Amino acid sequence: MQYISIKNLNEFAGKEVTLRGWLYNKRSSGKVKFIILRDGTGLLQCIYFKGNVSNEVFELADRLGQESSIEVTGKVKEEPRAPGGFELDATGLSVISESHDYPITPKEHGVEFLMDLRHLWLRSSKQTAILKIRHRIVKAIRDYFDGHGFTLMDPPILTPAACEGTSTLFETPYFDLGKAYLTQSGQLYAEAGAMAFGKVYTFGPTFRAEKSKTRRHLTEFWMVEPEVAFAELNDDMDLAEDFLEYVVQTVIKDKEEELKIIERDTTHLKNIKKPLPRITYDEAVDILKKNGIDFEWGNDLGAADETIISNQYEKPVMVHHYPSVVKAFYMKHDPDNDKLALAVDVLAPEGYGEIIGGSQREDNYDVLLQRIKEHNLPQEAFEWYLDLRRYGSVPHSGFGLGIERTVAWICGLDHVRETIPFPRMIYRNTP
Amino acid sequence: MQYISIKNLNEFAGKEVTLRGWLYNKRSSGKVKFIILRDGTGLLQCIYFKGNVSNEVFELADRLGQESSIEVTGKVKEEPRAPGGFELDATGLSVISESHDYPITPKEHGVEFLMDLRHLWLRSSKQTAILKIRHRIVKAIRDYFDGHGFTLMDPPILTPAACEGTSTLFETPYFDLGKAYLTQSGQLYAEAGAMAFGKVYTFGPTFRAEKSKTRRHLTEFWMVEPEVAFAELNDDMDLAEDFLEYVVQTVIKDKEEELKIIERDTTHLKNIKKPLPRITYDEAVDILKKNGIDFEWGNDLGAADETIISNQYEKPVMVHHYPSVVKAFYMKHDPDNDKLALAVDVLAPEGYGEIIGGSQREDNYDVLLQRIKEHNLPQEAFEWYLDLRRYGSVPHSGFGLGIERTVAWICGLDHVRETIPFPRMIYRNTP
Repeated sequence: MQYISIKNLNEFAGKEVTLRGWLYNKRSSGKVKFIILRDGTGLLQCIYFKGNVSNEVFELADRLGQESSIEVTGKVKEEPRAPGGFELDATGLSVISESHDYPITPKEHGVEFLMDLRHLWLRSSKQTAILKIRHRIVKAIRDYFDGHGFTLMDPPILTPAACEGTSTLFETPYFDLGKAYLTQSGQLYAEAGAMAFGKVYTFGPTFRAEKSKTRRHLTEFWMVEPEVAFAELNDDMDLAEDFLEYVVQTVIKDKEEELKIIERDTTHLKNIKKPLPRITYDEAVDILKKNGIDFEWGNDLGAADETIISNQYEKPVMVHHYPSVVKAFYMKHDPDNDKLALAVDVLAPEGYGEIIGGSQREDNYDVLLQRIKEHNLPQEAFEWYLDLRRYGSVPHSGFGLGIERTVAWICGLDHVRETIPFPRMIYRNTP
Repeated sequence: MQYISIKNLNEFAGKEVTLRGWLYNKRSSGKVKFIILRDGTGLLQCIYFKGNVSNEVFELADRLGQESSIEVTGKVKEEPRAPGGFELDATGLSVISESHDYPITPKEHGVEFLMDLRHLWLRSSKQTAILKIRHRIVKAIRDYFDGHGFTLMDPPILTPAACEGTSTLFETPYFDLGKAYLTQSGQLYAEAGAMAFGKVYTFGPTFRAEKSKTRRHLTEFWMVEPEVAFAELNDDMDLAEDFLEYVVQTVIKDKEEELKIIERDTTHLKNIKKPLPRITYDEAVDILKKNGIDFEWGNDLGAADETIISNQYEKPVMVHHYPSVVKAFYMKHDPDNDKLALAVDVLAPEGYGEIIGGSQREDNYDVLLQRIKEHNLPQEAFEWYLDLRRYGSVPHSGFGLGIERTVAWICGLDHVRETIPFPRMIYRNTP
């Protein structure tokens, strides 16, 4: 028996076909039963007329519960009003496994209830659409770097030392070697890679044991981190804007259908083309002050500040030259003003906040060693990192893009928890 | 200043160019100094004639240590004998950062020494080539699934329960929720995905805290796991062989140069085309007995057994229908013989052992519940997994392919430790 997929129906107009999937929804209208079949590639309305099918089939169509797995047979009919353009003039129906009392009904449910049933919630149209968009985003990211001469470098997840202090790290006993920590970023390793390959990117899960309970935080999230030898801060910003344009434009073009399902207005997104606005931290502070915020120079930008700044722009805005005190030890300082770091954050529009954080890295051995000491970091654990400055140091830069925040932004979601199949938050590590 | 990459030299034959990179090696022959430049895209011999360049440049060419970062200028000359077909008739040389006493010299070093310096060892031609091949393998895998209607589903890394017992799990405190465990496999989550999307694949790091100190084991390794609704064991094997053919043929065609650098004889690999041989576990046992092994039916195949079996074949061999006692609780048993599991392992040739493990999954609620009880697994933790059988269960199958073993096999390496940028083993979690 040859089975076809809903997405391939257009090749079978007027023909009799058999499909397998799940009963997504059904309704009844006198002598007609409507079954909506889903098969992971789309939805299809299957129409059973009382006269056209056996009594058994008609009764079955009436009885089957939501999410029963079924096989349907019928003739493919063009129907411009149907999503996908086709419906099925159904003749056959058989059950693979009956489902009763499926807990997620078309009515509204609370988010915690749905999150407890995340393994089933994934089957809902909106969740399916979001995760297909996530997939396309991931593919666009990889295609971009693969197509621009970057080498993929999978960074280690288990790391021996904390990159930025241990307070926000998950830790595990590691045989006779004491403890290992779950990585917060692949960057330091990517820097070793940039010295070997010129241009690399890491792409993997990263972890923060932060007690942040906001709509932008997960304890486990995916990050892509390009790192480029011989790149300075401006090159880093050039890369970030070219990359963002590619990802956004590719995804909204290719996932139009899914974006429609989740009712995302993509007008804003269509404008995300380079050049992106670039402002200094000082200019960002001016914007805050003009908006009546009592902001003190030298502080980091909070989520509310970022929203005010990004609201000034139609596109993501790059804020660069932050005070070095709010940035990481490995960032190179502005040679003209040691109080500033050659850092850049990219703030997404519509209040989605920071999606990219990047910088030029400190490439001078003595300065980096001094920083490690100032930050009370264990020098021994960073000897390998210092080696990158001992042996053939070059200017280099990179950035990290958080996948879940990017998905939330492109999909227009309120909370990052729906952007990943099984989100992990401080109060949830199930199912 | 426009800089070019070594891999683009062919566009600049006869022209004056400037390149940046690192001094990979050098030699001297009277009035000529040869500097081998590496820039991550290739190697280039730069030739400095005493008469043609200033004394400063000539002395610099003599003085600079291995891995100094440099900028070179010169005219691109076709030279058929050179790797890549070009060399540089050099006129300029300047230093970005001098490197002295680089610890990895062209002489032989012990593996532990090189692993301690893994962040630098990555710069060596052979290591660079292996990791570029790894990148191409990863891309081929993703391209295959992306091109065959699979949806990517990033599985959680932090999981609440052990899939197959806790003895080989890394664990971390998780806020007020007790402990979380690092995933050993994304499969159970992929099964939820298959019911939502029809076909999914997970691709991420997985962890085993096994005290295995063999050349095939890492504590942290990457795995790709496709899972397909409505697929039975034979479909699973069809998928595995089609997939393997695509990956191997794509990679050896595309990475010919890198495979040459690591001196991999690809004759064997060129034959990896479907169909792959399929034998039952019983037939495998017969092979062992014919080879004088005192093997008892019902035991699992050990590494030595796998080598004997795979040595009978030019291609990877699929061994299926294993005794259910040696396989996981979630595998469906053969309806004709409950002692057998509908499982398949794919053994790579040349002694590389199991690279794929897969099965049809138990899709019957009652049977699966019974298995969970028999294996003394905590039923509550598996309720969500049981839900997949409560609501619209369908036959489904999948497999997992270990990336590092696949890289080791395709590259012909003795040990998996060189297949990943920063390997993690029971006695190593640095650098």
